[in-house]
Amino acid sequence: MFQTFEAASTPEQGPPRLAALREDMAARGLKGFLVPRADAYQGEYVADCDARLAWLTGFTGSAGFCAVLADLAGVFVDGRYRVQVRDQVAAEFTPVDWPENRLGPWLCDHLSGGAVGFDPWLHTVQEVAELRDDLRTAGLALTPTENLVDAIWTDRPAPPDAGFFAHDAALAGESAADKRARLAGALRKAGHRVAVLTLPDSIAWLLNIRGADIPRNPVPQCFALLLDDGTCQLFARPGKANAITEHLGPDVAVLGQDAFLAALTDLDGPVRIDPASCPQIVADVLAENGVTVAHEQDPCVRPKAIKTPAEIAGTTEAHLRDGAAMCRFLHWLDENAPAGGLTEIDVVRALEQFRRDTGALRDISFDTICGAGAHGAVVHYRVTEATNNPVTPGALLLVDSGGQYADGTTDITRTIATGPVGAEEKACFTRVLQGMIALSRARFPDGVAGRDLDSIARYPLWQAGLDYGHGTGHGVGAYLCVHEGPQGFTRAPSRGHEPLKPGMILSVEPGYYREGAFGIRLENLVVVQEAPALGDMRPMLSLETLTWVPIDRRLIDIDALTEAERHWIDRYHADTVARIGPRLEGPARDWLEAACAPL
Amino acid sequence: MFQTFEAASTPEQGPPRLAALREDMAARGLKGFLVPRADAYQGEYVADCDARLAWLTGFTGSAGFCAVLADLAGVFVDGRYRVQVRDQVAAEFTPVDWPENRLGPWLCDHLSGGAVGFDPWLHTVQEVAELRDDLRTAGLALTPTENLVDAIWTDRPAPPDAGFFAHDAALAGESAADKRARLAGALRKAGHRVAVLTLPDSIAWLLNIRGADIPRNPVPQCFALLLDDGTCQLFARPGKANAITEHLGPDVAVLGQDAFLAALTDLDGPVRIDPASCPQIVADVLAENGVTVAHEQDPCVRPKAIKTPAEIAGTTEAHLRDGAAMCRFLHWLDENAPAGGLTEIDVVRALEQFRRDTGALRDISFDTICGAGAHGAVVHYRVTEATNNPVTPGALLLVDSGGQYADGTTDITRTIATGPVGAEEKACFTRVLQGMIALSRARFPDGVAGRDLDSIARYPLWQAGLDYGHGTGHGVGAYLCVHEGPQGFTRAPSRGHEPLKPGMILSVEPGYYREGAFGIRLENLVVVQEAPALGDMRPMLSLETLTWVPIDRRLIDIDALTEAERHWIDRYHADTVARIGPRLEGPARDWLEAACAPL
Repeated sequence: MFQTFEAASTPEQGPPRLAALREDMAARGLKGFLVPRADAYQGEYVADCDARLAWLTGFTGSAGFCAVLADLAGVFVDGRYRVQVRDQVAAEFTPVDWPENRLGPWLCDHLSGGAVGFDPWLHTVQEVAELRDDLRTAGLALTPTENLVDAIWTDRPAPPDAGFFAHDAALAGESAADKRARLAGALRKAGHRVAVLTLPDSIAWLLNIRGADIPRNPVPQCFALLLDDGTCQLFARPGKANAITEHLGPDVAVLGQDAFLAALTDLDGPVRIDPASCPQIVADVLAENGVTVAHEQDPCVRPKAIKTPAEIAGTTEAHLRDGAAMCRFLHWLDENAPAGGLTEIDVVRALEQFRRDTGALRDISFDTICGAGAHGAVVHYRVTEATNNPVTPGALLLVDSGGQYADGTTDITRTIATGPVGAEEKACFTRVLQGMIALSRARFPDGVAGRDLDSIARYPLWQAGLDYGHGTGHGVGAYLCVHEGPQGFTRAPSRGHEPLKPGMILSVEPGYYREGAFGIRLENLVVVQEAPALGDMRPMLSLETLTWVPIDRRLIDIDALTEAERHWIDRYHADTVARIGPRLEGPARDWLEAACAPL
Repeated sequence: MFQTFEAASTPEQGPPRLAALREDMAARGLKGFLVPRADAYQGEYVADCDARLAWLTGFTGSAGFCAVLADLAGVFVDGRYRVQVRDQVAAEFTPVDWPENRLGPWLCDHLSGGAVGFDPWLHTVQEVAELRDDLRTAGLALTPTENLVDAIWTDRPAPPDAGFFAHDAALAGESAADKRARLAGALRKAGHRVAVLTLPDSIAWLLNIRGADIPRNPVPQCFALLLDDGTCQLFARPGKANAITEHLGPDVAVLGQDAFLAALTDLDGPVRIDPASCPQIVADVLAENGVTVAHEQDPCVRPKAIKTPAEIAGTTEAHLRDGAAMCRFLHWLDENAPAGGLTEIDVVRALEQFRRDTGALRDISFDTICGAGAHGAVVHYRVTEATNNPVTPGALLLVDSGGQYADGTTDITRTIATGPVGAEEKACFTRVLQGMIALSRARFPDGVAGRDLDSIARYPLWQAGLDYGHGTGHGVGAYLCVHEGPQGFTRAPSRGHEPLKPGMILSVEPGYYREGAFGIRLENLVVVQEAPALGDMRPMLSLETLTWVPIDRRLIDIDALTEAERHWIDRYHADTVARIGPRLEGPARDWLEAACAPL
C-alpha cells in the first residue's frame, strides 16, 4: 500500500519543542521565527526531513505556516484546515484564519520593533518582498538565519536517497536536448543569459527525468541552471543522478547540490529567476555578487503545460487503464457496499489494489479522498484509523483518487449511492452533473482563460442557491504533479487568468457539500484541443474528455435534465462501454454495461 | 431632432492643417506632436471646440489619436473604426491598427532621439507614465507644450456656455451634503487631505448637478477639489454655475476654471489623484509645488455605480416610459416597414419622435445605431445622408438606442424582422437570445465580477462557432453617462474585474454579426440585487430586468429552446404586457398584446 492511515499528529510533543525553539530565538536576539510548511522546492508534498511545521506544531495539512513569537505561536491555515488544526495542535499554539489574516499585519500587531528570523531557503523572493513591505512601516526587520527548527531537531530524518531515473522520450514526445534548445532560444530572445530552475517538476520536464524523493509526485529533488546555449548544470545530492548520466548526455553537467550557491556567484547576467518560486537565498547570493537579475516566470512552466501529442496519447492510455481499474472497483463496491460492513479504509485499500492489479501503477497521484456520509462534505478529507467511518448503506460515498503511471497521471472523482438515497441528494447531484456537462461541452475561442469558464460549471448550482468553495479545475501533469499550473478553471488570478491552449490538461470537478450531511463531487480530466470546424465558422477550442468511468445513474434526477444533457450522458456512457468494455470481462463487464445503460 | 445625419468629415482640409502643424513643430524643435481624441475630461463625447482630432485629420470616431511626425502622421484607431478611418482621412495620414500597435514602440521605430510634444491637459497621468517608460530606452523625451492644434485653429468654436442645473435630491436619493460627508469620511480614513476630481460625471454625481456642455451625456464641464472636511471647490467657466449657487450651498465654493491650477499649488497633501483620468498637468503642478500625491481611484466612481433605491425607482419609471415609446415605435415599424420605402434615417427620426412625444426626453443617450441588412453588422454604425440605406423588407433591422430622462438613462437594442427572414438568421438570433436569457436568469454569490459572467451569455453562440467582438455589457448611469464604470460584463480587466454589488446597473447585450450580410443584437438593462432567498440556501445576487419591450417572436426558432428558456420568454412578455400595456391604447396596445403572445 502506498497510502497509510495513521493519524500522524503528535500534539503533545509540540510544547517542549516550541520552548526549545524560543530559547534559541532569544539567544539570537530574534523577536520571532517563521516555520513554513514549504521546503526549498515549493511543492505540494515535502519529504519527512522537511516536515518542520508538523514536527513543531503537530499540524499535518499541506499548506500553512507557524509564526513563533516569544509569547504567541500563530498557526496560519486556510479554510480546508480550520477544523483539523484544532485537533492537531496543543493549546500553546494559536490557530489563525489565513489568508483572511495576513502574516505581515499580524506581526505588526504583535511586535513593536526588532527582527523576525526566517530560513531563506524556504521562502520565495515574492513572499519575502511582500512581507518586508508589510513590516517596514512598523520598524520590523526580516532577517535570514539558519533554520532554528533543524538546530533543535536532533533525530531529523535523512533526506530521501532514491535515485533519479530517465523518462522515456517516446512518452515525453520531445527529447531533452530539443527542449533545452527550444528554451535556450527563448532565453536568447529575452536577453537572458541563464535561467535558475528550482522547481523539481520543471527540471523533470526539461531533462525528461523523474524521481522518488517525495510521495505522490514523481519529481527529483534538485536545482538546475539552464544557459542560453542550451547546456545545463544539474545540482543534486551525491549519487542521486548516477543512473541517468548517459541519459543526460554531455551537455548536462551533474554537480553536488552543495555547489549550487557557489555556482551562482560568478554567473554573467541577466539571470532569470521566478519570484513566485525561487528561494530568497538565491536572490541574496546573486545580489551580493552583483549579478543582474530578471524577474520572469520559470521558462518551463508554460511549455510543460502544453502536452505533446505523445503525452496526450500516453495520458489517454493511462486513463483507459485507470478507468478499467475504477470500473472493477465500482463493480466491487456495488457488490459489497449495500450489505453494510465496509469502512472508508476498506474502500481505499480495495481501490488501490485494483490500480495495483494493472501492473503499471508507480504510485497513487495523491492520498485517496474517501468520505462516507458527512465525511464527504470535508473537501480534502483523508481517512485515518481514528476517523474511519463505516460506509452506511444509503449514504453517499465520495471517492476522489488517481494514479501515477509512466505514461500519464490520472485524477477522478465519483460520488456513489450505496443504497437508496433521498430526493435532496439526487437534486444536488443532478445540478453538479449539469455543471460538469456544461463545461465539458463548452466550445470557446482562443484567448479565453479558465476564469472565464469557471462560472459555466457553477451556474446550475447557483440557480438553486448552491455553490462550492474550491476552484472548478486544476492543471494536471503528464506523469508529474497532479496539481500543475499555470492554468486552471478558477477565479483565482494566480491560475485562472492563463489563456487556455491546445494540449493543456485540466480537471473539471464541480461539487456540492452540505456540512454534517453529505458531499458530492464529480471529476473528469479533459484536454484542450482545436474543436472540429463547423463549416466556415470561426475556429474554436473544446475540451476532449480523458476519463471514462460511469456516472452513477441512481443519483440522477432525469426529469431535471434538458434533452442535450441527457444526450451527453448517454453518449458519454456509450463511449465508456466502447472504450473500457474491451478491458473488462465477465461480471465486471456486465456491470459496466448496466451502469452505462441509456437514461 | 437631437440626432443629425451629415457626414461630418472633411478629409480635404486635413493636409493643409497638417502642414501648418508641422511648421509649428519644426519651429519649436519638436520631432512629433500628439493629437488625441480626448479632451481634459476624458469622456466619450467632446465639445466642438475640443474636436481636435477630427479637425486635423477628418476622423470622427469616438476614440483614437494622431501622432504627427515630420514625414509621417499615424492615425491610431481600434477595431470599430478600421473601415471608417480609411474613408475619412486624406492620403497624407496613415491609419494604424491600435492597440495591436502601441504608440510608444511606434514612436521608437520612427524617431531616433529628440522630443515629442503633447498637451498635458489632454493626456492622463497613467498614459504619460506608460509612454515615458516606452520612450526612455530609445532616448526620446515627452515634452509638455501648449496645444499646437489650438495655435493654428483660427476659427475654433467657443467652449459650450450652457449653464449647470440642479439634479433633484429626491431623484438622486441622497443629498449632495450627505455624499460630500460620506466621501470626506473615506478620505480621512485613507489619510488623504484632498481629492482632485476631473471627471464631470463624478462631480455631477457628488454635487447632484447636471450640465449640457456636450451631446448625449448630461455632464457639467468643470473640475473640483473635495476636502477631507466635506467642503468642496468647484472650478467652472464664468457664469456656468449661476443657477445652482443656492443648490450648492455654503460648503461648495464656486471659482473660475482658470483658478484651478493655482488652487493646487498650496494644497496640504496627501492629495489623491486618479492616474486613470487625471490630466498630467495636475500631477506636474502638484509635483512642482512639492505637494504629496496619492494615486487612487476617483472616490466617486464606486459609490456612483451603486444606485440608491430612489435612483433605481427613477430608472425603473424611465424604462417604463421609454418602453412605451419603443412599443409605439415598433408598432409603427411593423405597420410601415413591410411595404418598403423606409430608410434608416426615417427609422431614426421616427424613434426619436416617439421618445420626444413622452414629453420627458432631455436628450437621446447616444446617437441611435440603426442598421438595415449588412449595416447591422457594423457594431457602431451611425447612419449619415451618405450611407442611408433603404430598409428592405425581409432584411434584419438592428436598432440600438436610448433616452436621457431626469429620472434615468435608458439603452435598449432590438433586432426586428421587416418581412420573412431566412433560417440562418433565425438560428443565429435564437442563440443570441439564449445567451441573453442565460445571463438574465443568472444567480451568483457575492464576489463574482462581470468577467466571470461574460461567458454565460456567449456559451450558446460559442457552441455553434459564433461569437461577438465586444463586451457583453457595460455599466449605465442614472441620468448620467450611458457608458459608466467601473463594472462591466467583459473580459477586459479595466471593467470586468469589479465585483458586482446590489444597485449596480448594467446592460446585457450579446450579439452576432455576419459581415456584409446581417447583424443581431439584443439588449436589456438590469440592476444587480439580492436574490429572493431559497429556503436556508446561501444568499445570492441576481439581475432584475429594467427593460420591458417585446423580443421579436418571428425571429425565434422555438424548437431550439429548452423549456426553461421558453418559460423565460413567455414570462418576460407577460410582464411586459402587464407593465407597458396600461401606458398604451388602441392599435398600439393590440400590437403589444400580439407581440407578447406566448410562444
